[in-house]
Amino acid sequence: MNKEYKIPQATTKRLPLYYRFLQNFAQEGKKRISSQELSDAMKIDPATIRRDFSYFGALGKKGYGYDVQHLLSFFSQTLDQDEATNVALIGVGNLGNAFLKYNFQKNHNTRIVVAFDSKAPYEGTDISGIPVFHPDRLEEMYEEYGAELAILTVSSRSAQTMTDRLAKMNAKGILNFTPIRLTVPDSMKLMNIDLSVELQALIYLVRNSES
Amino acid sequence: MNKEYKIPQATTKRLPLYYRFLQNFAQEGKKRISSQELSDAMKIDPATIRRDFSYFGALGKKGYGYDVQHLLSFFSQTLDQDEATNVALIGVGNLGNAFLKYNFQKNHNTRIVVAFDSKAPYEGTDISGIPVFHPDRLEEMYEEYGAELAILTVSSRSAQTMTDRLAKMNAKGILNFTPIRLTVPDSMKLMNIDLSVELQALIYLVRNSES
Repeated sequence: MNKEYKIPQATTKRLPLYYRFLQNFAQEGKKRISSQELSDAMKIDPATIRRDFSYFGALGKKGYGYDVQHLLSFFSQTLDQDEATNVALIGVGNLGNAFLKYNFQKNHNTRIVVAFDSKAPYEGTDISGIPVFHPDRLEEMYEEYGAELAILTVSSRSAQTMTDRLAKMNAKGILNFTPIRLTVPDSMKLMNIDLSVELQALIYLVRNSES
Repeated sequence: MNKEYKIPQATTKRLPLYYRFLQNFAQEGKKRISSQELSDAMKIDPATIRRDFSYFGALGKKGYGYDVQHLLSFFSQTLDQDEATNVALIGVGNLGNAFLKYNFQKNHNTRIVVAFDSKAPYEGTDISGIPVFHPDRLEEMYEEYGAELAILTVSSRSAQTMTDRLAKMNAKGILNFTPIRLTVPDSMKLMNIDLSVELQALIYLVRNSES
């Protein structure tokens, strides 16, 4: 287990945001930036920013702030922005369809290269320019298209079965949009996004701030 | 600011999950449960569960675990499951369309009651059984349909403008799916879900566990 592995998940999720905002600041010609300026732009409290950055070693100097180019090359390296990532989408229902159309246009290095759906014909079809195959061909096509990660937008019923097949293939990670809490081997990374849960959490925040 | 307001956002997001799993355990006839059992089912580390529960006061007894019915009624009350929440969807593109079709079927008390899209006619149209109006009628229809929260799936360009209009109407909260970091008044709650960021964070986790 290397050092970076221990970074809290909340920090991990902010890394791509830091990178995006630093790119903006660099484009505006800014040479250095304080945690307060980053805080104002990102709506993240400056103490959180300083703590996040501290996980990566002392990146800033007191009274000076952070060097934009230094941070930028650091985050670029950390996030492996130079390396392309091929993603497989499993389940082309309403949400899956939206992903195929959207296809992470903002991330030029990350794209859905192949999709699977139980309604797709064995020989494959084309949706929004992406080949979609029957799940019977998951193992074969996942490898052929060089996918590293899977976005899981299948029904709850199929979620664990598909996950087990992905685990057997040594897939590296799953972005899980089903409400199922998946069982994955330690070697596989998992991120859960449950839209109902996010909405309920928002409702909770709203109700508990009324007084 | 009341006490519950200080609960960390990560804990808040787990509350609906706890509630769902406790419902399952109650349906199976379980009377009490340990943090370890909850941990096994939910894939959340038991220490996290105990810490989360501690924010709500001492809900469990040492060596006994937690009383399922007690927890269930506690979470039901905390999450206001009895109270219906009407939600407005702003922006019916690919993702918005998927939400209209899905409409949070799992949460019977939470539903999208009205939607807005710049392509919709002034007099309104119907998509998946939900009335969709032109954004010119946001203020009028948001109130007429009794919406409390908004899901924001508009383009980045319109995100802040729509947010400002919602703020003026005293909308209580926004679930933001745009990549924009929105400025909202203190009275308004905000949850951000940036799908590119989630995917990039997953890629980061994968890359940094390879060694």
